Amino acid sequence: MSAPAGHPRFVSLEGGEGAGKTTVLEALRAALQADGDEVLATREPGGTPLAEMIRALLLDPSHEPALPHTELLLMFAARAQHVGDTLLPALARGAWVLSDRFTDSSYAYQGGGRGLDAGFIAELERRVVGVRPGLTLLLDVGVAQGRERASGRDLVPDRIEGERDDFFERVRATYLGRAAAEPARFRVIDASQPAERVAADAVAALQAWRDAG
Amino acid sequence: MSAPAGHPRFVSLEGGEGAGKTTVLEALRAALQADGDEVLATREPGGTPLAEMIRALLLDPSHEPALPHTELLLMFAARAQHVGDTLLPALARGAWVLSDRFTDSSYAYQGGGRGLDAGFIAELERRVVGVRPGLTLLLDVGVAQGRERASGRDLVPDRIEGERDDFFERVRATYLGRAAAEPARFRVIDASQPAERVAADAVAALQAWRDAG
Repeated sequence: MSAPAGHPRFVSLEGGEGAGKTTVLEALRAALQADGDEVLATREPGGTPLAEMIRALLLDPSHEPALPHTELLLMFAARAQHVGDTLLPALARGAWVLSDRFTDSSYAYQGGGRGLDAGFIAELERRVVGVRPGLTLLLDVGVAQGRERASGRDLVPDRIEGERDDFFERVRATYLGRAAAEPARFRVIDASQPAERVAADAVAALQAWRDAG
Repeated sequence: MSAPAGHPRFVSLEGGEGAGKTTVLEALRAALQADGDEVLATREPGGTPLAEMIRALLLDPSHEPALPHTELLLMFAARAQHVGDTLLPALARGAWVLSDRFTDSSYAYQGGGRGLDAGFIAELERRVVGVRPGLTLLLDVGVAQGRERASGRDLVPDRIEGERDDFFERVRATYLGRAAAEPARFRVIDASQPAERVAADAVAALQAWRDAG
């Protein structure tokens, strides 16, 4: 059971809370658009109307907490929809796809964070996703610094932001482990730097990867 | 990879559109309550606040159609929540559980109807469900008769009711195949009969099974 192959025009952005993904995504989009290419910027969970409704359900604090397997399957349900209805059609017409989070988030949050079996996550990836980014930029920042940044943003923490520090330490360790295991796909960006520096490093990593490809 | 074992106080009700499950469920509940036992009557998709929200999403015709894998994973997400938060706690305190649909519905609708791989459904069942009913009553009725009955009920057909006849023929065939493969768990009830007759047959099947157990 081999992992899906990376697509040469599909770039994902990963990282914990407060890593600055939104700013970086805009910088990457601008860099690619400067070359005149079509760029689809999307996010997970989300990326289609139904997938965005699943996202809302996942983050909604009004119902009982989702059990770990429920959360995992909702994430992959949204991903299956996103891949089939948005991502593969965009790649097929030659567009670049920039996704704020993709399957690595499930390995990090539901696998590392919640302790679910990585073999099951791999089975779901193989069965219902079937594609990986060619390049994954991991914005890495220490948990305390990331949470401090993120806490300035929302008045009410959502379901995942409400987790404890050890949860986010496991998330971070899983991300770093995946990056070490797949050096051809991952670039780790030091996201403890000021936002403009993080964005510049990410754009440089994207351009170096593209020029080498 | 063996299938989960059947639980001696867990009864599921299965069947296509217009098979009369609601009437039968009430008759079964009354028969069990007459003995003074606690009876939890529940349904799928649903059975917890979050799972009912997933149900609403699945049946909502306002968003784009769910892709087959999306539908499958939403069904199992709702089921994981239902099993963990409602069903297992009820069984653990000694209650009877009567469920209007359970995992057999996924084999019939997403497997038989949509053509998804039964091996993947079995993997999801083993990983996130882990329990089967001790008794499954299959209310069997011809597709044309069932749809005629069901069509009197709603003004706007939901996502699944809007499928074509060949879809429902595959659903029915899958149900009957499962019943033939697991005669110890399944009882097939002739649901082409008048509703009171169907309910009486179902109650008699339940009582015979319980007395033999």
